Amino acid sequence: MADDEFSIIDKYFARIGWQSDSIVLGPGDDCAVLSVPAGFELCLSTDTLVSGIHFPAGADGDVVARRAFTAALSDLAAMGATPYTFTGALTMPRVDHTWLSAFSEELSRLSIEFEIPLVGGDLTRGSMSLTITVMGLTRPGQAIRRSGASVGDDVYVTGYPGEAGAGLMLLGRADKRFGSLLKAYQSPQPRIGLGEGLRTLASAAIDVSDGLFADLAHMLESSAVGAEIDIGKIPISSEMLEFTTRDKALSLALTAGDDYELCFCACTSNQGKVENLAQSTGVIITRIGCIVKKKGIRLLGDGVDTLDLVKKGYQHF
Amino acid sequence: MADDEFSIIDKYFARIGWQSDSIVLGPGDDCAVLSVPAGFELCLSTDTLVSGIHFPAGADGDVVARRAFTAALSDLAAMGATPYTFTGALTMPRVDHTWLSAFSEELSRLSIEFEIPLVGGDLTRGSMSLTITVMGLTRPGQAIRRSGASVGDDVYVTGYPGEAGAGLMLLGRADKRFGSLLKAYQSPQPRIGLGEGLRTLASAAIDVSDGLFADLAHMLESSAVGAEIDIGKIPISSEMLEFTTRDKALSLALTAGDDYELCFCACTSNQGKVENLAQSTGVIITRIGCIVKKKGIRLLGDGVDTLDLVKKGYQHF
Repeated sequence: MADDEFSIIDKYFARIGWQSDSIVLGPGDDCAVLSVPAGFELCLSTDTLVSGIHFPAGADGDVVARRAFTAALSDLAAMGATPYTFTGALTMPRVDHTWLSAFSEELSRLSIEFEIPLVGGDLTRGSMSLTITVMGLTRPGQAIRRSGASVGDDVYVTGYPGEAGAGLMLLGRADKRFGSLLKAYQSPQPRIGLGEGLRTLASAAIDVSDGLFADLAHMLESSAVGAEIDIGKIPISSEMLEFTTRDKALSLALTAGDDYELCFCACTSNQGKVENLAQSTGVIITRIGCIVKKKGIRLLGDGVDTLDLVKKGYQHF
Repeated sequence: MADDEFSIIDKYFARIGWQSDSIVLGPGDDCAVLSVPAGFELCLSTDTLVSGIHFPAGADGDVVARRAFTAALSDLAAMGATPYTFTGALTMPRVDHTWLSAFSEELSRLSIEFEIPLVGGDLTRGSMSLTITVMGLTRPGQAIRRSGASVGDDVYVTGYPGEAGAGLMLLGRADKRFGSLLKAYQSPQPRIGLGEGLRTLASAAIDVSDGLFADLAHMLESSAVGAEIDIGKIPISSEMLEFTTRDKALSLALTAGDDYELCFCACTSNQGKVENLAQSTGVIITRIGCIVKKKGIRLLGDGVDTLDLVKKGYQHF
C-alpha cells in the first residue's frame, strides 16, 4: 500500500503551496469547493504537456513542474487575469520518489511565488504527461481577448522572444557562456504582473508559446485584421547576437516557441502608459509594428528577403 | 495543415454541446471566461483516464467520452453539485477521424443531456489519455463532504453496485443475456439529480468508483467513524444472480469499481425523505447499515465468512 495513489498524493501533494481563504475545501474529497469572490469573472485554461514533445523525455520533476506551471500561468497573463487556483493531473509510468519530490517541491514553490493554491488533481499510471487546469480572476469585461485589435493600434512584444528557442538548442551542451538563453528555456517567467497592468491598456493580447509569428497570426485572425511588423524593431539581446547571426536570431525570435512572453496591441494614445507599465514592472516592452486593415503579417525592414521563415511557428499536431 | 491541432479542434470541438449564458467567452482564446452566478460555490474535480487502464486499449471514441464524462460528473453528484462547465484535454497517438467523430458526438450529446457546456481543452500527441476537469455549483455550505458522517447515521447505496464489474467481465463475450450488466459498465449514469436532492439530506457522500468497500472506507476515514454493514441488505439484482453465485455477486458489489453509484450517510430522522427522493428520482436507494464509533467496516450477516474479500477495492497505482 506504500505506493498507492492515495499515499503518494498524501505524501507529495496534500499540504503544498499557497493556502487561501477562498478555498472552502481543498484536495481529498470528491471535489474541491471554491468561493469565487463576488464581482469577478473566472478565466480558465487547460494545457497538457507530453514527455518527449513538450519537455525532453527524462526531464527532472522540477523542470516539468516549472514548464507546465509557466505555460498555464502564461495563459492567465495573456487575459490579464490574477491567479486564483489550479489543479494538476499527473500520469507517470512508475512511482519515482526522487522525481516526485523534485516535482512537488517546485510546484509548491511556484504556487507560493504566484499565490495560487493547488486545489486538486489526479495521479495515474501511464506514459508521462501532465495536465494543468488553471483559473484566474478579472473584473467583468476586463479580460483581454485575442479579438480586440483595431486598425491603427500599436503591436508590442515583451522580453526577447527567441531566447527560449536558443536555450533549447543549448541544452546538453557544455557551453556555459549563454546562461540567460538557457534560463529563458528552463525558467520562463509568466508575465502575470504585466498582464494585470494591461487589463485597462491593451486591446488584444496572446502569449507567445508557439512562436511570435504564429501567435501574432492567431491574434490577427481573431481580430480580423493584419499587421505590419518592422523586423528592425524585433528585440534581440546582445547574448543572442553572440550566440548566432542576426538573421538566425530574428528567425528564432519570429518562429521559436516556449518564450511565454506576451504579444499585445494597444491604442497609440496609450503609448505613454505602456512605457510606464514597462518601468513599473521591470519588463522590457518593445513596439514592433502596427495593426492594418489588410489581413496577414507583412514584415518590413532591411534583410526581410533573406529571413528563413519556412518554419512559421511550431505545429502542435 | 489539415490535421493540425487548431483545425481538429475547430472541426470536432468548437461548436459542440450545451450552450450557456454564463459562458462569457468559450473556447478559442488563451482562457475561457465564466461568469459564476452570485450566491454559489464552485465544486471542482479533475480526473485522468488512461488507455489500457481506465478503459480498454482500442476502445471507441464514444466509449471513452462516456466513461470519462461519467466519472467526472459522478464527482459532482457526490458533492450534490449542479453541473456548471467542463474542459477536456485529449492526448492521442495519431489523428483518427472516425475515433474523433464518435468521441465528439458522444461528448456533445452528454453535454446537452446534462446541460453542462464544454468551455475549453487541449489536444496533444502521445499515448492515449483524457483529462476532464469538471465544475459544478452548490449553495454555500451545502456541498456534501466525505467527512460529515456521524455515529447513528444510516448508510445507503444507490443502484446495484457490482453490475459494472460484471459487465466488464462480459465484454467481448458473445453472451447476449446480460444486457443490464453490460450497460452498467458501458453507460453508467452519474447520479446528478439524486445528488442535488441529497444536499439537504445527506451528512456525507462519496461516489463508488473504486468499489463500495474501498470508497465507503474513504468516507469513514474522512469522518473518523466506522460502519456496520449488513451483507444481507447489499442490493443484488436478479440478473446478477443469474450471472453468478450470490457470494461472487456480493464480492463484486463490495469490491468492483466503475459503478458510479453513490454511497451516502443520513440521519435516521431523514429515512422518509430519502425514500421520497428515491421515488421522485426513480433511483433505487438501499439502506445497508449504520455508522458506529469503532473505526473500520464490520460486515454482518449470513455468509460473511465465505466471502472472498482479499481484493478490497481497485488500487489505482
